[in-house]
Amino acid sequence: MPTVYDLTHPLENGMTFYPGDPEPRIVPAEMTPPWRVTELHFGTHSGTHLDAASHFVPGGKTIDQYPLTRFILPGVIVPVTQGDDEPIPPQAFAGVAGEAVIIRTGWDRFWKTERYLRHPFLSPEAARYLVEAGVSLVGIDALNVDSTARGTSHAHEILLGNDVLIVENLAGLEQLAAGKAYRFVALPLRLAGLDGSPVRAVAW
Amino acid sequence: MPTVYDLTHPLENGMTFYPGDPEPRIVPAEMTPPWRVTELHFGTHSGTHLDAASHFVPGGKTIDQYPLTRFILPGVIVPVTQGDDEPIPPQAFAGVAGEAVIIRTGWDRFWKTERYLRHPFLSPEAARYLVEAGVSLVGIDALNVDSTARGTSHAHEILLGNDVLIVENLAGLEQLAAGKAYRFVALPLRLAGLDGSPVRAVAW
Repeated sequence: MPTVYDLTHPLENGMTFYPGDPEPRIVPAEMTPPWRVTELHFGTHSGTHLDAASHFVPGGKTIDQYPLTRFILPGVIVPVTQGDDEPIPPQAFAGVAGEAVIIRTGWDRFWKTERYLRHPFLSPEAARYLVEAGVSLVGIDALNVDSTARGTSHAHEILLGNDVLIVENLAGLEQLAAGKAYRFVALPLRLAGLDGSPVRAVAW
Repeated sequence: MPTVYDLTHPLENGMTFYPGDPEPRIVPAEMTPPWRVTELHFGTHSGTHLDAASHFVPGGKTIDQYPLTRFILPGVIVPVTQGDDEPIPPQAFAGVAGEAVIIRTGWDRFWKTERYLRHPFLSPEAARYLVEAGVSLVGIDALNVDSTARGTSHAHEILLGNDVLIVENLAGLEQLAAGKAYRFVALPLRLAGLDGSPVRAVAW
């Protein structure tokens, strides 16, 4: 097995979550020692997670309706240089080829701070460019492929409306080299009929 | 990508869970349409899941303390013929080689029935045999590697006490051929300091 890189934020009490989403909460369950079990209270979009089409598209695919091969993809890292609440233009993806396109904004370093909400986002033109390039999954190391500050939803609409999966809140993308090919794995829990899932995102 | 087999039970309301564990509960979150988000209430051992040493061993490793390569292993399927609450003897594993040993009892067909609680289980001798064989992970398509009916814990004690991971509640193992080598993947959520995790278990 080659080196496996962890691209996932820890799930823990006090972690960052999308404003208005269920607040992640972890509580020890009452058990007879030495047994230890824990209660997990999350949303489908807590931490590093996948969006299924049904997160935004009425009647769209639920997370258990995709073939597993959609979550195990050859992919590339695309570093971008946009700053606070700035749109990423389609030019950032010129010449990019890969079934998974993973956008490295560096915003994961602001996780648990207010600035994490003012991340760069995909312009509608960039989202359309990725659809036309035949990308299967778009990942980002930020809270949202759309602008959280502006409350817009163009990128979700364009990607999920065209059968492109989204992974948000990736972490540690600086471990991966731009231009190099990786196997990117982000398998969802088998959540029957639901709109997304927390994942353990890895690459090798 | 070769065929990827899903070895996971769906997570849904009304699913089977270990008596005394937190009851899995899935509830739609209040969102502005068309956005759809769902609240997940699970235990660390709900559905198809991994046990970390700290599930049973005081001071044992938590699920985030294992290298990721412990969850991505070459493995084999071992069919066994034991019936209701019968111990699996060490002879069942004679000559078995593989970092992951996945035990096929066929008990997943009783999921959601009372009989699911009266599954075959690992005898202490079989658990010791697997430790001595240098196995890294033991999986089973039943609720528990120990007897649920008798409430014993020998296999957990022996496996987790010797740095062997456990996956319980696997499903669909009839898709895999005995004697053939597979890549077995069961990545846990990145649950900081916790005792186990629901997983999407797959093989290819």
